[in-house]
Amino acid sequence: MPDAKLQSVLSSLSQQASELNALPSTWPVPDARCVKLDRNENPFALPPPVMQSAVAALERQYLYPQDDNISLREAAAKAYGLCRDQVIAGNGSSELLGLIYKAFLSPGDAVAMVSPGFSFNRKLATLQGAQFLEVPLSEAYPLPTKQLLFGPAKDAKFILVANPNNPTGTFVPVADIEGLVAQSNRLIVLDEAYVDFAPDNALRLVDRYSNLLVLRTFSKSYAAAGIRVGFGFGHPEIIGRLRNLQNVFNMNVIGHAVGISILSHRVAYEENHRHIKSERQRVSVALSQLGFSVTTSHANFLLAQVPSGKDGTWWQVSLKRRKILVAAFPEDGLENCIRVSIGTRPQMDAFLAAVSDISDYDLQT
Amino acid sequence: MPDAKLQSVLSSLSQQASELNALPSTWPVPDARCVKLDRNENPFALPPPVMQSAVAALERQYLYPQDDNISLREAAAKAYGLCRDQVIAGNGSSELLGLIYKAFLSPGDAVAMVSPGFSFNRKLATLQGAQFLEVPLSEAYPLPTKQLLFGPAKDAKFILVANPNNPTGTFVPVADIEGLVAQSNRLIVLDEAYVDFAPDNALRLVDRYSNLLVLRTFSKSYAAAGIRVGFGFGHPEIIGRLRNLQNVFNMNVIGHAVGISILSHRVAYEENHRHIKSERQRVSVALSQLGFSVTTSHANFLLAQVPSGKDGTWWQVSLKRRKILVAAFPEDGLENCIRVSIGTRPQMDAFLAAVSDISDYDLQT
Repeated sequence: MPDAKLQSVLSSLSQQASELNALPSTWPVPDARCVKLDRNENPFALPPPVMQSAVAALERQYLYPQDDNISLREAAAKAYGLCRDQVIAGNGSSELLGLIYKAFLSPGDAVAMVSPGFSFNRKLATLQGAQFLEVPLSEAYPLPTKQLLFGPAKDAKFILVANPNNPTGTFVPVADIEGLVAQSNRLIVLDEAYVDFAPDNALRLVDRYSNLLVLRTFSKSYAAAGIRVGFGFGHPEIIGRLRNLQNVFNMNVIGHAVGISILSHRVAYEENHRHIKSERQRVSVALSQLGFSVTTSHANFLLAQVPSGKDGTWWQVSLKRRKILVAAFPEDGLENCIRVSIGTRPQMDAFLAAVSDISDYDLQT
Repeated sequence: MPDAKLQSVLSSLSQQASELNALPSTWPVPDARCVKLDRNENPFALPPPVMQSAVAALERQYLYPQDDNISLREAAAKAYGLCRDQVIAGNGSSELLGLIYKAFLSPGDAVAMVSPGFSFNRKLATLQGAQFLEVPLSEAYPLPTKQLLFGPAKDAKFILVANPNNPTGTFVPVADIEGLVAQSNRLIVLDEAYVDFAPDNALRLVDRYSNLLVLRTFSKSYAAAGIRVGFGFGHPEIIGRLRNLQNVFNMNVIGHAVGISILSHRVAYEENHRHIKSERQRVSVALSQLGFSVTTSHANFLLAQVPSGKDGTWWQVSLKRRKILVAAFPEDGLENCIRVSIGTRPQMDAFLAAVSDISDYDLQT
């Protein structure tokens, strides 16, 4: 029986909402017994004072969170040498990306991203009815500046660059980023999600260029992916426009407390970052010895081309059978690669043992 | 010196984003020594098992939250006798309201709300470039069904009704809600934020009418405003469209844990709800004796018309001087009213003492 009310309600949907025809698929809940190296999480506990501030915040659970994330934005401004109006705080940098898309894109507009990049951006463009232009990087041009400025991307409303880039892990000198920002009058959104594992960062450019917006997250280098804390740094006028669009109470009291506490205990993470960098080096060497071709990484993961004969998805499935989760990217021109996050030493030992096991047995059959 | 880059970036803003010209104002951080009765918070601690589940979740802080809030949606479906696909979970019901506006409104469209209502909706309409139609309720017609169906609101893309209504606290029988839903083919968004303090609720209508979407929040009756947990219940096809638009990882691991735990410990809140209802009665009587005219409330607040001579804002300011925070609504045709949340007994004693004090001194000068 046709449901007239349902048809009527569906006909009221906006064009973009109705074009997203497929209902969302239900993701499988990951097997908790697996070694999870597929999402670049940082599998360490919060430093004790950060944990204490989170527990204390649980006792203010009945009060609405502070409006406009003021204290968190002030703490971030102080930590990074900026002023409060240059800072927006988000429920993860993913919320901030969503705001940027909403602020700058109307149906038919275009956005450009260096590719391969963070695939979540493709969905955000679709939600705005916008065209998503991918500008390929190459080994010779890890930042394709000319193509971004003068190629088909020249009319994009804004340009997305990640440094270090995901999923490649490559890092371009900040001088190259500055070259792009200086030559363009469009907004450059620079995602620095992985920058704490890299040799330099571009935050000092925020005061110099009003068309630069830097995104940071506490999901990777500060082991807080589950808490959702992200920041955007840019010109007060741009930041203000994004805050205008932001939903009320976008972060909860735990996000505020953990964010503020991490900002004043960043030194407690130095050992964590040292561990990840040295483990990244050890796993890279070991993978090379097992026949993988590993891209030099400045992030908390490695992109590795698998030995010839099988593709990345085959390796992903084979590893999953041994309860190791890694990422594969068949849709991003990286059919022959896997991406493995750098976790604890025992996790990486388990990963390497599984790779070795697969090389010895599965590949021979 | 004009900043060419800034002007160029601002010119890339979408029409709606650029029409929000004013930068956001900075809200004052409330004085923590004040008795906070202005936002209908529920000033009690979480039940011990809920608190324990929150602390346990803090130890999974490094993992991304579960995709699509699956376990939380399943728990809510089970608790309320629905299926998972009829449930969407939000970072507070405010996030869900934002999604509804995004899904159904394009610039130039209209939305209708029973007025006076939750003023946050006005901002959401502005963000979509949509017209916001207010359909006044009256004592004779607490639900203006005819005006919603046949008046200027008849072309609205959806209709917002809150039951109990905020800021009046009035409650209309569920049969009246059903009458509106049955007679309309448009989406009726029924905000039941305060329904746990009322004699009935409309959740049983969700299975019967595909044009009904019921919103709930744990901010009021479950003392979790700071955690941000909200739900939408409706037809799987409508719920799916909203989930499509939802940002990834919209809730953090604490939101998931607290939400799931509250759902299985709702009985632990019965004493809380009994307290609020009896305190509501006591304060209502006391205010009447002090010359206020109090609307019968089915929520955790009272709307009170102040004694003649001064307006609601004057009372709000006078109370604030005595460190009591209440709400006033000069923009909603309620110039002569204040709204006071029902808190603990000591909080309400402090409020009543301050009102009495103001009556005795300030009003005489």
